[in-house]
Amino acid sequence: MSTVDGTRLKANLLEMARIGATPAGGVTRPALTDEDKACRDLFARWAREAGLSVRVDDLGSIYARLEGTDPTLAPLLLGSHLDSVPLGGKFDGPLGVLSALEVVRTMVDRRERPRRSVEIVDFTNEEGARFEPAMLASGVLAGHFMPEDVLARRDRGGLVFGDELSRIGYRGEVANRPGAIHAYLELHIEQGPVLEAEDIPIAAVDGILGIKWFEVTLRGQAQHAGPSPMRTRRDAMVAAARIVHGLRGLMLEYPDPVVGNVGRLRAVPGVMGMIPGEVVIGANVRHPTSEGLAEVGRRFEELVARVAAEERVEATIDLLWHVEPTHFESSLVGLIADEIAARGVPVRRMTAGAGHDAKYVAELAPTAMIFVRTVGGMSHVETEAIHWEDATLAADVLYGVVRKLTDA
Amino acid sequence: MSTVDGTRLKANLLEMARIGATPAGGVTRPALTDEDKACRDLFARWAREAGLSVRVDDLGSIYARLEGTDPTLAPLLLGSHLDSVPLGGKFDGPLGVLSALEVVRTMVDRRERPRRSVEIVDFTNEEGARFEPAMLASGVLAGHFMPEDVLARRDRGGLVFGDELSRIGYRGEVANRPGAIHAYLELHIEQGPVLEAEDIPIAAVDGILGIKWFEVTLRGQAQHAGPSPMRTRRDAMVAAARIVHGLRGLMLEYPDPVVGNVGRLRAVPGVMGMIPGEVVIGANVRHPTSEGLAEVGRRFEELVARVAAEERVEATIDLLWHVEPTHFESSLVGLIADEIAARGVPVRRMTAGAGHDAKYVAELAPTAMIFVRTVGGMSHVETEAIHWEDATLAADVLYGVVRKLTDA
Repeated sequence: MSTVDGTRLKANLLEMARIGATPAGGVTRPALTDEDKACRDLFARWAREAGLSVRVDDLGSIYARLEGTDPTLAPLLLGSHLDSVPLGGKFDGPLGVLSALEVVRTMVDRRERPRRSVEIVDFTNEEGARFEPAMLASGVLAGHFMPEDVLARRDRGGLVFGDELSRIGYRGEVANRPGAIHAYLELHIEQGPVLEAEDIPIAAVDGILGIKWFEVTLRGQAQHAGPSPMRTRRDAMVAAARIVHGLRGLMLEYPDPVVGNVGRLRAVPGVMGMIPGEVVIGANVRHPTSEGLAEVGRRFEELVARVAAEERVEATIDLLWHVEPTHFESSLVGLIADEIAARGVPVRRMTAGAGHDAKYVAELAPTAMIFVRTVGGMSHVETEAIHWEDATLAADVLYGVVRKLTDA
Repeated sequence: MSTVDGTRLKANLLEMARIGATPAGGVTRPALTDEDKACRDLFARWAREAGLSVRVDDLGSIYARLEGTDPTLAPLLLGSHLDSVPLGGKFDGPLGVLSALEVVRTMVDRRERPRRSVEIVDFTNEEGARFEPAMLASGVLAGHFMPEDVLARRDRGGLVFGDELSRIGYRGEVANRPGAIHAYLELHIEQGPVLEAEDIPIAAVDGILGIKWFEVTLRGQAQHAGPSPMRTRRDAMVAAARIVHGLRGLMLEYPDPVVGNVGRLRAVPGVMGMIPGEVVIGANVRHPTSEGLAEVGRRFEELVARVAAEERVEATIDLLWHVEPTHFESSLVGLIADEIAARGVPVRRMTAGAGHDAKYVAELAPTAMIFVRTVGGMSHVETEAIHWEDATLAADVLYGVVRKLTDA
């Protein structure tokens, strides 16, 4: 039996999913579109109806606050995001915001007055699908982006972030940003297949994998495919293929959650009857520790050098992006684990593979996440799905953690 | 000592190379452009100045005829093409047409009156760089394309083949097509590195490799690259990579000139942070015999099936194109070899890897080719180059063969 109302949470999720709904059951709600505005309006209305005060900061992030009895205590922040990728799913983001709302409503319904204030946040532009890169608003809070740069950013159609923010009525005040934050908790779908494979409904997330993005350019010799004997070729495509396969083999030497793959490949000239003279691949490797990330990065570079020498092609490696691993606050992760165990559910700790606003907020305050099993491990697709009972359980665990953090 | 005038041949090649010249030493002369017209005009003027009669057929191919003494004999056809790919070289095509012109001029200068007429042909649109596919005019002669379809074909800018032919003044009469052809000889650059590697100037070409073009579509599971454990992935890019590398290994089991490679690869979605759910590759295999071509095709399909099963992806294979090997007339190849040997040069026979008009003409008449060593094996590039003494030797061999075929 849960304290939170799973039926209300489900109803709210389904009502919000009608905004920007797509025929195949997903949603299209990129940041600062009319659909994003409609979600924001709905969330703000529900929050006010629950007695919360609502404010908007200069980047458009919305904070809905339940006032605690002790105004000297820094608030507890709960949240996620309401924007989506085009043809995305109805849970990636809203599950975290609306679970937090359900937790606070439960407290209000039960007339629990916490000592510490609780704020529910909808971070603007988490997905980065319209304005790149992802997690712009939380990135500003953590000092990774300058707010004036973000406000001047344009989408592919040339529309400006700040103008769109004003247009939808969500350009607020810089003074409305959060001050000191006691802790941040984000509930999110797993977006991977691990929990489903292990038949476990939810997990306590202990951090986020560090990432290296490499772009590797391989230069061989472009030639007619017909008159060039196999043994004289310097085939950039073969070199690229060996690196793609070699990277997979390298990653298989490590335990989960260490991963790496090649997501894109461009061949020049890239036509049937030619041996490509140049191939450019985009490879990413991820590891939960800083030392491990450095090691897999170094071993990938060694792989490239070895294959390039054997195939007699020139290789250049550019490190496009490097993000150190994030380690969440262990006491918070432990608190989540305790609440899971208290509900008779196996405790699974895991490390997130994808980025979340929690990554940036973790630089400002103790942070942790709760993951919900995702059907087929699929997200960013219209058929993204969860089990309703898992959502109820996760929200109930969040409720338990919030109670402990707001009364301590 | 050669009978033909290598100095004149070189001067003619360099004069023609000024038409559509590019800064890096190449030419841009796609079919039916103003540059193609200027080349045609120059060739026709030179031919008339040598006393030849010039006619143009309905596809714009030009025939310059030296009349033999016996009008009952079918003419000997010599030639190649004057069009080029964009940013191509100055020898691919013109070397064959202008070597034939040099041979005929030598006969005229020496007051040799052959019994059999000799015709020099410039086939329209050999490259297929402007109007696809390649070898359109010779393909019409061999019945592979309908002339009305060719005349209606459009380039990427929407301009129509027949209109462009009229515009440049080269839309002739269907009656001007060749009738019975005694034999066809085409002199061309090798476009590969074999002769250079073996330090041999020219070769007698005994045929053209058969070709199979495959398009392979691999469907796995598109997923976020971060949260998907290595062991659960169905990574279409890894499957494609194994096929690219596996095809190379398969081809290495065969002796030259058997070849095969993957020239293009497209990943969907093809972005850094995703495991591609679909990868489409274009593979080609080539073999000099029909049985061999069938075998390498079958083994490639087995490779795809094995990799797909191991990587748990779905594979579909489309055979986009299939061309049986061409076997040139062995007596003609032998005649070329004899003339090479008579000049104290090692006799190298080889099979062409790329297509030529000779492929289609071989279906109409006994055919053979002479290849000229290509610097670095490079063609379809501005830096395409030959050694002038090789060109003189090749033209002199052609002269020797022509004398035997026209007086026999």
